[in-house]
Amino acid sequence: MRPEPYSWSVDQHEMRRPADAGELADRLAAVLAPGQVFTEGEKFEAALHDGTAFQGLTGRALVLVEPDDAAEVAAVMRYAYEAEVPIFTRGGGTGLAGGAVPEGGIVLSLARLNRVRSIDPGQWRMEAEAGVTTATVHRIALENGLMFPPDPGAGEQSTIGGNVATNAGGPHALRYGVTNHSVTGLEVVIPPGRLVHVGGTVTKNVAGLDLKSLMVGSEGTLGIVTAVQLRLVPAPEARGVTVATYSDNASGCTGVEAVLAAGIRATALEFLDRGALTASVGSLPFDVPADPGFMVIAEADGSAEEVRETLAGFEEALGPGSASTRTLVSRHETDAFWSWREGVSWAVAAQRGGKVSEDIVVPVERLAEAVEGTLEIGHRHGLEACSWGHAGDGNLHSSFLVDLEDPDELARAREATGNLFDMALALGGSISGEHGVGTIKTPWVDAALGPEVASLQVRIKQAFDPKLLLNPGHKIPLPGA
Amino acid sequence: MRPEPYSWSVDQHEMRRPADAGELADRLAAVLAPGQVFTEGEKFEAALHDGTAFQGLTGRALVLVEPDDAAEVAAVMRYAYEAEVPIFTRGGGTGLAGGAVPEGGIVLSLARLNRVRSIDPGQWRMEAEAGVTTATVHRIALENGLMFPPDPGAGEQSTIGGNVATNAGGPHALRYGVTNHSVTGLEVVIPPGRLVHVGGTVTKNVAGLDLKSLMVGSEGTLGIVTAVQLRLVPAPEARGVTVATYSDNASGCTGVEAVLAAGIRATALEFLDRGALTASVGSLPFDVPADPGFMVIAEADGSAEEVRETLAGFEEALGPGSASTRTLVSRHETDAFWSWREGVSWAVAAQRGGKVSEDIVVPVERLAEAVEGTLEIGHRHGLEACSWGHAGDGNLHSSFLVDLEDPDELARAREATGNLFDMALALGGSISGEHGVGTIKTPWVDAALGPEVASLQVRIKQAFDPKLLLNPGHKIPLPGA
Repeated sequence: MRPEPYSWSVDQHEMRRPADAGELADRLAAVLAPGQVFTEGEKFEAALHDGTAFQGLTGRALVLVEPDDAAEVAAVMRYAYEAEVPIFTRGGGTGLAGGAVPEGGIVLSLARLNRVRSIDPGQWRMEAEAGVTTATVHRIALENGLMFPPDPGAGEQSTIGGNVATNAGGPHALRYGVTNHSVTGLEVVIPPGRLVHVGGTVTKNVAGLDLKSLMVGSEGTLGIVTAVQLRLVPAPEARGVTVATYSDNASGCTGVEAVLAAGIRATALEFLDRGALTASVGSLPFDVPADPGFMVIAEADGSAEEVRETLAGFEEALGPGSASTRTLVSRHETDAFWSWREGVSWAVAAQRGGKVSEDIVVPVERLAEAVEGTLEIGHRHGLEACSWGHAGDGNLHSSFLVDLEDPDELARAREATGNLFDMALALGGSISGEHGVGTIKTPWVDAALGPEVASLQVRIKQAFDPKLLLNPGHKIPLPGA
Repeated sequence: MRPEPYSWSVDQHEMRRPADAGELADRLAAVLAPGQVFTEGEKFEAALHDGTAFQGLTGRALVLVEPDDAAEVAAVMRYAYEAEVPIFTRGGGTGLAGGAVPEGGIVLSLARLNRVRSIDPGQWRMEAEAGVTTATVHRIALENGLMFPPDPGAGEQSTIGGNVATNAGGPHALRYGVTNHSVTGLEVVIPPGRLVHVGGTVTKNVAGLDLKSLMVGSEGTLGIVTAVQLRLVPAPEARGVTVATYSDNASGCTGVEAVLAAGIRATALEFLDRGALTASVGSLPFDVPADPGFMVIAEADGSAEEVRETLAGFEEALGPGSASTRTLVSRHETDAFWSWREGVSWAVAAQRGGKVSEDIVVPVERLAEAVEGTLEIGHRHGLEACSWGHAGDGNLHSSFLVDLEDPDELARAREATGNLFDMALALGGSISGEHGVGTIKTPWVDAALGPEVASLQVRIKQAFDPKLLLNPGHKIPLPGA
C-alpha cells in the first residue's frame, strides 16, 4: 500500500500547548541556570538542523537547553511534562533522517554530558555519558587495548548517545554487530522525569524485559539516555584489506556472495557501484583497471596469522570474475585506503553539488537487484544515481545526485527516495539499516512494519510517554498526526 | 529492600474466570480438532511440570492443547481472549525457573510446530518453527557448515522457542552472545490473536522499535513466538580447550581475570569450585592433582592456527598460580571433556539425591566473592553448597545439595536461594543470567529492576496483553497478584 505522498514538512505535529518563548526560557533558566538556556544566536540556530541541513531541512523551537548532568535532564523533563511542552533531544546533530530536527518546544542538547565515567580495561568495560563523541570512545578504548566496534562515521561530531538512539552500525557491524550488541546498560530519564537504569554491567541478564534493547534505536521517543555502559572487545593485533574490482554489478555481487558462502568471517564487506567509483576513483591511493564497474572491499582483523589466512580466503573468493584484486596489509596502506573510503560520500555529493541518499537494506542475495533498482529509479526521475555501502549486511547507501539550488531536481530526488523505500520493502528488506526513521521516513513505517506492529509500538510509546512529549512524530508515526 | 518471604506457591494468580474443564475442552476441540485437546492422561500430567519438577513444583490447568501451526495458535488465542482464560505456553519443558508451570486455564504446547522452514547456507540463515529442538537446530546448522552458537544444555528436549523465551545462553555466549544475538526476526501471535512479524531476515533494521529483542527473553508474557529467523555463523574449523586446576578460589578467579586482561577472545571460559569438582572429578577423562580446589576451562575455536595461538595464550594466562594445566586439541579429547562437563550438574545432584540451584550473575571481578558467598549462605542454612558455570560472563550456577525427601532441608534450600538473589544484587549483578524469572524469582524482580522499571514493564505487558492472559504472574510481577 502506497503511503501518503512523500512530505518534508516539519509542521505535521504541533506543540500541544504553544508557549511564549520568553516565558518558557525564564522558567527553564530557573530550573537550570541562565547560561544554559538559549532562544537565539548561532548555537540556537544550529540546533534547528542536523545532518539533513544541506538538503534544506530546518526545524523550529522555542528554547535550547544544555543541562550539565542527568539530574538536570530529569529536572527539565519534569518541568516540560508538567507544562506539556515537547522535548526534542539532540546529540551531535549528524543524523541523516531528520531525527534531531525539532518541531517546536524545547531542544535538549546533551553536549555537556561529556564525561567518560569509567574505563575497566581488564573487564572490557566503559561507562560514558551520552554526549561523549564516538571518536573519544574509540580513542579511549584503543588507549586501553580495546575496541568499540561500531564506526558509523562522522565520529568527531557524532556522540555515543546518538549512536545508541539510532542503533548505529557502520562497516564493522558485519562481524561485531550494531551498537546494541556493545551496550549492556543505560542510564535513562523517563517521563515524567525520573532517572532509571536498564540493564547493567553484566552481559547476561534476564531479570526483566529487555528494555535496554528497546531503548537502543528508539531515537529519543521513549526516554532520554544520559549514560551508556559499554562492553568493548580486545583491539585486534592486525588488519588487512582485499580490494577487488569488477566490470559489472552482477560479477561483483557474486564475489560478495562467494565470501559469505566460503564461511569467512569478514570484519567488513563493502561495495561501491560504478557511479560511486566514477566520483571517487581519482583519489584512490592505488591503480585499478580503467572504468571499474563495481568494487568489493573485504576487511580482516585478528592476529597477524589469522589476518593472513582470512585475506587468502578473500583472494580465493573474490578473484574469479574480477578485473583486479589487491591486498593491503601495512598500517599505512590500510589507513590511507579507509580514509579514501570515508570520503566516498563527499566525492559523490561533489559531482553535482549535493545528493539525496537513503540507507535501505535488503537480504544480501538481493543486493544486485537493489543496486540496479536504484539506477532504474534515478533514470525514471531523470536523476543520476549510484550506491555503495555495507554489502555483507545488504545495507546500501542509495543516492541521487542533485543540484541543491534546483528545487525541481530536489523534489524529484525526494520522490525517488520514496521509490527506494518501496523497493527495499518489495525485496524483503527495510527502509533503514542504520540511519533511523527520523522525520523523513515516518510515512513508510506502516508499510514497513504492518499496521498491527505499527499500532503496537504506539502503545509502547504511550507506556513510556503517556503525554507524547518526547520527539513526538519522530520515528513512531502517531495517530492523527 | 527485602521482598516478601520466598514462596513456592503456584496459587498467587487465580484464573480470571474459572471455567469447567469439559466445556473448555469442547470449545477448544471445535477450534482445533479433538485429537489436539487433552484434559487428562500422561501427556496432560507432564504438561503441569517443567525442569523444576524434581524440586516438587507442580502446576494446574484445565486443558492442554497442541495446535499444528501458527494459524491454530492464533485461533486458540482468539478464543481464550474472548473467553478470558489464561494461556500458559510450553516449549520443551526443561526450564529451571518454573516458567512452564501453568497456574490454571489453557496450556498451549508448541510441540507440533516442529518444522525447519528454510536453511540458506550461503546467507547463514535458518527459519525454524518454535517447537524445533535446539539439538535439531545445531545439527542442521552443522550439516550446512554453520553453527548456532547458543548451547544452553538439554538440547534434545529444549526447543528454539524456549531458547528465545528465556534468551538462553550457555558457555559459548561469552564469544557469540546470548540467543537474541542470533535472532533477526520472529513470527509471533499477539493478543487478541493476530499473527505478526517483528524484525526479519536482514541483520540491520531500524524501521521500528526493537520489538524483536523485547520479545526475546519475555518468557511468553507478551505474545506466543511461533517461528524464529536465525542468523548463524560459519562453523569453526577447529576447537581446543585448556583446563587449569588451582588449590583455591582466589587463585582460580585470578586466572579467569588474567585471560580477559590478556585480551584473549575465549569461546568459553568456565569454572568449577571445590564442591562441584568433588562431585564430578572421579569421571574426569584425565588426571589432575588430588583434591582440586578450583578448575578453569578455557575454550578456543576458529582456524587450526588461530586455535593454536589462543591456546598458547590460555596457558600463559592460566599457568601462574595453577596446580596443573592441560590442553586438549583432538576432537576425541575435547568431546569427551565436554561430555564430562555436561554431566557436572547431575553429578552434583547425585551427591545427596537433589539440588536447588540458581543462575545468578555478577560482574566478573566479583566472581570470587560470589563463589565464597554461596558457601557462606549454605553454611548459614546448614547446607552443603557449591557452584560452577560461565566464569567469563560472571554467571554462576550456585547450588545447595539436598535430600529431596526431607521437607525441612528443601525449605532451608529455598530460603538460601533467596539469599543468593540478594547477594547477586548487592554485588552489582542480577537474579538470573539465562534461566529466566519464571514463577520462582518474581518476588525479587522489584529489587532487581527498581520500582520504576518494574512498573514500566507492567505497562509494556499491558500494551501487548491488555487482559493479562499470557503467562500471567510469570516473569513480570503484576500489581495485586
